[in-house]
Amino acid sequence: MRIVIVGGVAGGMSAATRLRRLNEMAEIVVLEKGPYVSFANCGLPYYISREIPNREDLIVQRPEVLNTRYQLDIRVKSEVIKINKEDKTVVIQDENNTYDLAYDALILSPGAKAIIPNIKGIHEFNHIFSVRNIPDIDAIDNYIKNNEVKNALVVGGGFIGVEMAESLHNKGLKVSLVEMADQILPPLDKEMAVHAQDELIHQGINVITSKAASEFKEKTVVLDDGREINADLVILSIGVQPENKLAKDAGLELGIKGSIKVDANYQTSDPNIYAVGDAIAVKHSITNEDVLIALASPANRQGRQVADIISGIERSNKGSLGTSIVRVFNQAFASTGLNQKQLDALNYDYETVHVTSTHHVSYFPNAMPMTFKLLFNKDTGVIYGAQGFGYEGVDKRIDVLATSIKAKLTIDDLPELELSYAPPYGAAKDMINLLGYAALNIKENLSDSIQWSELDDELEKGAFLLDVRDGVSHNQGHIKGSHNIPLHFLRCRLHELPYDQTIITSCASGQLSYAAERILKQSGLKVKNLDGGLRIYGKMKPENLGKK
Amino acid sequence: MRIVIVGGVAGGMSAATRLRRLNEMAEIVVLEKGPYVSFANCGLPYYISREIPNREDLIVQRPEVLNTRYQLDIRVKSEVIKINKEDKTVVIQDENNTYDLAYDALILSPGAKAIIPNIKGIHEFNHIFSVRNIPDIDAIDNYIKNNEVKNALVVGGGFIGVEMAESLHNKGLKVSLVEMADQILPPLDKEMAVHAQDELIHQGINVITSKAASEFKEKTVVLDDGREINADLVILSIGVQPENKLAKDAGLELGIKGSIKVDANYQTSDPNIYAVGDAIAVKHSITNEDVLIALASPANRQGRQVADIISGIERSNKGSLGTSIVRVFNQAFASTGLNQKQLDALNYDYETVHVTSTHHVSYFPNAMPMTFKLLFNKDTGVIYGAQGFGYEGVDKRIDVLATSIKAKLTIDDLPELELSYAPPYGAAKDMINLLGYAALNIKENLSDSIQWSELDDELEKGAFLLDVRDGVSHNQGHIKGSHNIPLHFLRCRLHELPYDQTIITSCASGQLSYAAERILKQSGLKVKNLDGGLRIYGKMKPENLGKK
Repeated sequence: MRIVIVGGVAGGMSAATRLRRLNEMAEIVVLEKGPYVSFANCGLPYYISREIPNREDLIVQRPEVLNTRYQLDIRVKSEVIKINKEDKTVVIQDENNTYDLAYDALILSPGAKAIIPNIKGIHEFNHIFSVRNIPDIDAIDNYIKNNEVKNALVVGGGFIGVEMAESLHNKGLKVSLVEMADQILPPLDKEMAVHAQDELIHQGINVITSKAASEFKEKTVVLDDGREINADLVILSIGVQPENKLAKDAGLELGIKGSIKVDANYQTSDPNIYAVGDAIAVKHSITNEDVLIALASPANRQGRQVADIISGIERSNKGSLGTSIVRVFNQAFASTGLNQKQLDALNYDYETVHVTSTHHVSYFPNAMPMTFKLLFNKDTGVIYGAQGFGYEGVDKRIDVLATSIKAKLTIDDLPELELSYAPPYGAAKDMINLLGYAALNIKENLSDSIQWSELDDELEKGAFLLDVRDGVSHNQGHIKGSHNIPLHFLRCRLHELPYDQTIITSCASGQLSYAAERILKQSGLKVKNLDGGLRIYGKMKPENLGKK
Repeated sequence: MRIVIVGGVAGGMSAATRLRRLNEMAEIVVLEKGPYVSFANCGLPYYISREIPNREDLIVQRPEVLNTRYQLDIRVKSEVIKINKEDKTVVIQDENNTYDLAYDALILSPGAKAIIPNIKGIHEFNHIFSVRNIPDIDAIDNYIKNNEVKNALVVGGGFIGVEMAESLHNKGLKVSLVEMADQILPPLDKEMAVHAQDELIHQGINVITSKAASEFKEKTVVLDDGREINADLVILSIGVQPENKLAKDAGLELGIKGSIKVDANYQTSDPNIYAVGDAIAVKHSITNEDVLIALASPANRQGRQVADIISGIERSNKGSLGTSIVRVFNQAFASTGLNQKQLDALNYDYETVHVTSTHHVSYFPNAMPMTFKLLFNKDTGVIYGAQGFGYEGVDKRIDVLATSIKAKLTIDDLPELELSYAPPYGAAKDMINLLGYAALNIKENLSDSIQWSELDDELEKGAFLLDVRDGVSHNQGHIKGSHNIPLHFLRCRLHELPYDQTIITSCASGQLSYAAERILKQSGLKVKNLDGGLRIYGKMKPENLGKK
């Protein structure tokens, strides 16, 4: 039996090694069009700054090792240019020859390719790069070494764009980042992503949102508002799309957005051809609809699973959730499940809570703030998604939330989670528990909250904005027009509040103001709490802030 | 309505503040026999070394703040000495008076008290302390300040014992730790806990297991083997037991090990009296049997829940799992669910896997090793428990596993968990996924493993021990009598292996040897894999190691 695998990175190499462990007798051929298999594609940006110091570190497994350990027939610089599915052969082009190779089973793991938009000048210059593999990163590295590069421009504020911006900055370049949308990091919602923009700006990156590149010139990039940005080096990280050419040419059925269509057994429309990784569409764990999720973790799992299936072990693709994280200088930004933009597009009913806390108990040294957002259904308690950012421990909380969503836990279960606590590691009431409590307060009608985006409307309709922080904090910065009664004095100053207006309580994070909401509600006032407090509203509407 | 709460720390104070948020009108009285409420009991050990630099940091909320913010009537140094349940009153003794206070509802949150065994001399000296509250820690701190203290002895190797040993060491004392059992850190199994002992020893702590203190003298402690250990200061951290005196005297029904018996609504045998926290027994989430779990996280949850119940919100105690973690100098040791000792006592059928990996991808700088153990049922896939240790990211993995157990996920689900991955934070195949894969390999009979404790027997019965690491590693240290064939050469050296013996494959962690197991199994050999490899076996049986 000969199994031929097209693509030698995450999905393809996971399939190959698992196949060998299951089957000593099979002939396993891995065909990789590039010069390397099993390379660290997620690590590429970090080599530019030499945070990953050695180029060899990017090559996780060398073909020689894979050959001897797994008896894999690995052929690099070997591009499959055609599939003859009737004959069950592929046509391979390597540096010297073009030849046919028969297969009993074929696994396609071609990945995704960078989207290169048709912008004036984009193909004219040799200082414009994308970042998909080691040759790409070598080319960038060599270009910087051999040319006078001072200014870099990154087009696209997704994960790779942000990582490249940081890496180029750390290398000493003056970096700009242009993003067409009104926010960077699309998996996050805007009020979360703005904190990433802030971190980039704080570190010295010139971040430009809601603008597109309209022309590339030798030393500049022209934006669609006519501005020219200096750029001796351009990184294109606009996004990726399924690498479907082979599949399409072979007449395999395609799915959404040009993906290779597969069933739950990773079988394409041809029963001898399987596909895994970034090139396929998967069912979203929450919506059960087809989605593209180009991430390393699902790709690796799928590669192993397709090996199991081909070897006769029962296994199926149970869908993906899309958990992701990115480091932005000193902070992490993470998300899992559906965000607000997706929920709006799906027309789902949902509620939102934002909670700010510290990564471990505040009394233990070096406690750092973090903020999480939870999206859930008020009636069923179903958790749709979560996002978070902060300096430490963000990965832990998003992983617990991703696990909770996969396990179909509801908001009622989050307070029940018993997470490890000792002062250096967390809190007796962890962020996860707090998110559950906050969501339950909404579900059980103990709290009515409004979101940052709703406050201006409420104020225009005549709501009374009550800031319950202490006077010093209020004087240092507050939402214009807010009235300050510190929580401590609230009970004895109730008479200062208008009984005929909606009162919106606010504080730094939404926590003290929730306590205030409870006091006022029980006095018969109509109250809403500004969810997330100044930490969320203030970054989104800095123009509405004032000082005493 | 007057609600009286006995005990002003985790459970009691959570109940008090939640009660106020739910009910502005109730009179809420908190009675605390000590001088402080809402103090950081988990932080106490870290104040001795001044890792928590300020004593004020140990007081999380001051009574004045709690009074004004929550209108709580907090009475410190006020010990409840009697409950008259028929009259619904408590008798309180404070510094000046003894007086009665009537209640409509009474919440008992007295916590647990240190076990002080009846050892000769234990009550004779003023240099013997336990660590339960701020006065305790003040006393230790003052004693060190005012006396010539050079040698400290900690009796008991639980969490507090280990934390105190580290803290006293960091303060500059020469520290010994004596533990009666054959291992420290009882929530972990021995082969995991031994790595904590190692870390302590490595840092300079004199760790003595399987020995008890038999007499305390002025400058020494005598052990039961006759040895005398120098000790100008003794910390007793032998364990805790429910503080049940009040409940017992009042004739409330008691449960296991002297705990206060409550139903799922935290109601004691008297319908007007509730109890929460370390003093009550809870249902174990896995066994559904009564257990004592003295941890801050469940206590805080219970406090909030009893407030809800008293306020008419439907809530119930869904049981506890017992997730815990402790820092031991540079490493973390964590566990959740049931350990092997408990499973053996329960007569459960279980399998074990040990997996060693790095906390983030190995190609990213500063990747640190960590080892996890998973206990599960081979037939049902039910996860019984997990333990882990390492330098970074241990808390994250134990929290995901605790969440998985609470959600009743099985080992089949662990590979499906999509955890956040970027090079600084994890791996595309995270430890959690690897544990799932390893367990599935056992469940699906792809691998037969033996545990460290079974190897010697197998060898005695004539098994052939095959070390598949490279020759250099083998020469540096290996299990005596092992034969070395590096994995790379295994396929071409199959003829060297005995076809009539059981072959036990081994390597550093159990991973390469699993690959070897698969090769040999498919050649018709009878093979078992040494689970956890040398990393586990070597620490447990150092006497069986040799070098070339």
